[in-house]
Amino acid sequence: MSAQRSVRLRVFSLNCWGIRYLSRSCAQRYEMIAELLHREQHDIALLQEVWSEKDYLYLKRTLATSHPFSHYFRSGVIGSGLAVFSKHRIQDALLYQYSLNGYPYMIHHGDWFGGKAVGLVILSVCGMRANVYVTHLHAEYCRAEDTYLPHRTVQAWELINFIRHTSADADLVILGGDLNMHPQDLGTRLLRAHTGLRDSYAETDSFDGCEDGITLIADNPFTKKKDLLPFEKGIRIDYILIKGSNSVCVKCESMSTTKGAVPDKPFPYSDHESLTSQLLLLQQSDRMDGVRERHTDTGTPLRELVDVVSEARCVVKEGFRQTERLQLMAMCLLAVGLAFLLLPVTTLPWLYPHSHCVVSYSFLGLLGALGLAMVLSGALLYVLFTTQLKALRGTEASMKLATANLQEREGGCLEQVDEDEGGRVPSSTPHTARGDAWSQQPTPLGYED
Amino acid sequence: MSAQRSVRLRVFSLNCWGIRYLSRSCAQRYEMIAELLHREQHDIALLQEVWSEKDYLYLKRTLATSHPFSHYFRSGVIGSGLAVFSKHRIQDALLYQYSLNGYPYMIHHGDWFGGKAVGLVILSVCGMRANVYVTHLHAEYCRAEDTYLPHRTVQAWELINFIRHTSADADLVILGGDLNMHPQDLGTRLLRAHTGLRDSYAETDSFDGCEDGITLIADNPFTKKKDLLPFEKGIRIDYILIKGSNSVCVKCESMSTTKGAVPDKPFPYSDHESLTSQLLLLQQSDRMDGVRERHTDTGTPLRELVDVVSEARCVVKEGFRQTERLQLMAMCLLAVGLAFLLLPVTTLPWLYPHSHCVVSYSFLGLLGALGLAMVLSGALLYVLFTTQLKALRGTEASMKLATANLQEREGGCLEQVDEDEGGRVPSSTPHTARGDAWSQQPTPLGYED
Repeated sequence: MSAQRSVRLRVFSLNCWGIRYLSRSCAQRYEMIAELLHREQHDIALLQEVWSEKDYLYLKRTLATSHPFSHYFRSGVIGSGLAVFSKHRIQDALLYQYSLNGYPYMIHHGDWFGGKAVGLVILSVCGMRANVYVTHLHAEYCRAEDTYLPHRTVQAWELINFIRHTSADADLVILGGDLNMHPQDLGTRLLRAHTGLRDSYAETDSFDGCEDGITLIADNPFTKKKDLLPFEKGIRIDYILIKGSNSVCVKCESMSTTKGAVPDKPFPYSDHESLTSQLLLLQQSDRMDGVRERHTDTGTPLRELVDVVSEARCVVKEGFRQTERLQLMAMCLLAVGLAFLLLPVTTLPWLYPHSHCVVSYSFLGLLGALGLAMVLSGALLYVLFTTQLKALRGTEASMKLATANLQEREGGCLEQVDEDEGGRVPSSTPHTARGDAWSQQPTPLGYED
Repeated sequence: MSAQRSVRLRVFSLNCWGIRYLSRSCAQRYEMIAELLHREQHDIALLQEVWSEKDYLYLKRTLATSHPFSHYFRSGVIGSGLAVFSKHRIQDALLYQYSLNGYPYMIHHGDWFGGKAVGLVILSVCGMRANVYVTHLHAEYCRAEDTYLPHRTVQAWELINFIRHTSADADLVILGGDLNMHPQDLGTRLLRAHTGLRDSYAETDSFDGCEDGITLIADNPFTKKKDLLPFEKGIRIDYILIKGSNSVCVKCESMSTTKGAVPDKPFPYSDHESLTSQLLLLQQSDRMDGVRERHTDTGTPLRELVDVVSEARCVVKEGFRQTERLQLMAMCLLAVGLAFLLLPVTTLPWLYPHSHCVVSYSFLGLLGALGLAMVLSGALLYVLFTTQLKALRGTEASMKLATANLQEREGGCLEQVDEDEGGRVPSSTPHTARGDAWSQQPTPLGYED
């Protein structure tokens, strides 16, 4: 059947690596990026790591004619780094900041200060409502021992839920960004399975770019090759994901990535490669043969949905245990700090006869200062880890609820373990008096199953 | 026309004032609340200030037969305090934590530690999809000089956007909770106008409760009368708001509140009164005469929508200026702390000849400890206020975008002020070179208009 109406949409995504004064050749690269966007005239450009609002404003002014609509998402201490430039009017925007995003004391990693988030802009594309999401998840610094895996998994789960709950009336859903996850990593599988989003690289008709679609390549002069090992050529962690609806069918016609070096320029646009997907949008009545859309569900078998959530729950539970240990260490720090603070008070009477002993006084002063620093740090870390435990526990409860409802849909029985979230408590449970109930309670923040 | 199918739904909301060891008669009141909920068999109970997970678990066990489905929303250091108990299966849940929520150093107010948020549960009510929201906004401690007004306004705006973006496919929307805003306050007007939610108290056919529907009454023994002044009888800050859809029409048949004292009990359920709304749901074809629903828009004239957002923008801008001053004070604290830390180093050579001068050494030690505390506090406060400035700036940008799009809908011209968010830049703006653009840039975090 021939299409009555088709629209082509070109979507661009790039992690700009825009840390002013730290990222190499930052200003020159923004000039190159602006030039590229202005020349290529993509419909939508999704940018990450635009950390400075000055750089966003520079791009905004430079792209005023090619991309008259733009939005910058602000969050955290430095910002979310997320920006959208569009040829189509931005009708609405919403930001969702992830509840977990690393640790503030890991200053050299810096993710915590970035306020990682997912930004949504709603565009009107030739009368179709397009929900366009841009995101950037927590980086993976050591694949062999990835202490941030629970945080990234929580972020992926929150991303999924945010997309699911906000895209009900969208004709078209696009997600672009740096997910910091390989195609077969848990978070990526979770995302694809639970949203029904499809990887435009995996299903494009035509591809021109780096081998295996990798977006962090070893040949890039800004990349340290040892950081990519054991993946000698590089890794694929940037994506453009797509999904249609009952009214619109979407298909990736062609896709391309930059390949490191830029002709006539001394360096690449960024340490990441950029992605460009050309999408073909067809209205429901004009659907092409062989193109299938998923409407009411994500198209993933229920069993697979349950399995991937179970896997994610294990990661989140391990994250909970890991954070409990950190919280305990914070409490120890606080206790030792208090001891250091009290030491001068308890030893003063002993020192009194030797009140001219300068060294002892200096030592006690030092102990006091150290104690104060330890008490403050311990208290702050305790607050931080308590907040993180709340977020991990909340995510695990949300996953448990999702599992219970998937199993209900599957027609199977509910989980045999105690369902403490959204799950039905056996109706034989009596209307207990308070005293009885207390004695039966599990540890409130511990896991019950 | 007579209804083919109608469903009655009873919704309950209560701020439980559940601060363990601090709220008076906390455990006994939870017993009374559990007893009330079990006896009254509401379809949905929306609770706020259930600060302890132990208390949630107690309610969950006690209500196992009357309300088999429940969800507890975890966020912040202490938690969000939000809990939902339901007769109907909870199909999904999502939490959105507000980006601004007071200050951690205002420990006696405590809001910051609560991680205020809006929780969404999706219920299936006789085949209808009900999006049920529960929330609790920042408290108002001094109406005459309300320093938290910008924070509450940001929260109200985020609540609006969260509801708008997540309720597209809902047949029915219910919002219950403690908004900490009077019916004609800016945030309440903003909420009603931009979501189309209707106050069930304002339109109920029958009401039985406190005069003027007040929910924080002077007669409540847990309430300090002077805190309510100049409102001698009390204030109305708790709400159940409702909205139908194209498929379902909703109407509040009757509403009631508790009236302080509880028969045969020594004290009330809480320092707030509880609310109960009986809703009548009618499918679209069964609409009763005189009942009107708003479907595609909120039913508020565009001019009014623009005006109320403009008012909110002014509040947010004032909040921005106020926070900029606080940020400056944090920087001063940091600078003075650094000076105190450096003082011992610079004065040591001078003290050297009198190295046995214990008093001076002690004094310098004290200065050093004070300096350290000031540097740490200054740095932390700087980070806090920078984050708050980001949130305020982001909200203001979001409001600006909403205004521009409302004006576009109105058919009028876009705002004359520089549109830096989503707005179109005059197409005559040239594709400037970077150097030119920099010279034209406004202060990045300052307001441009």
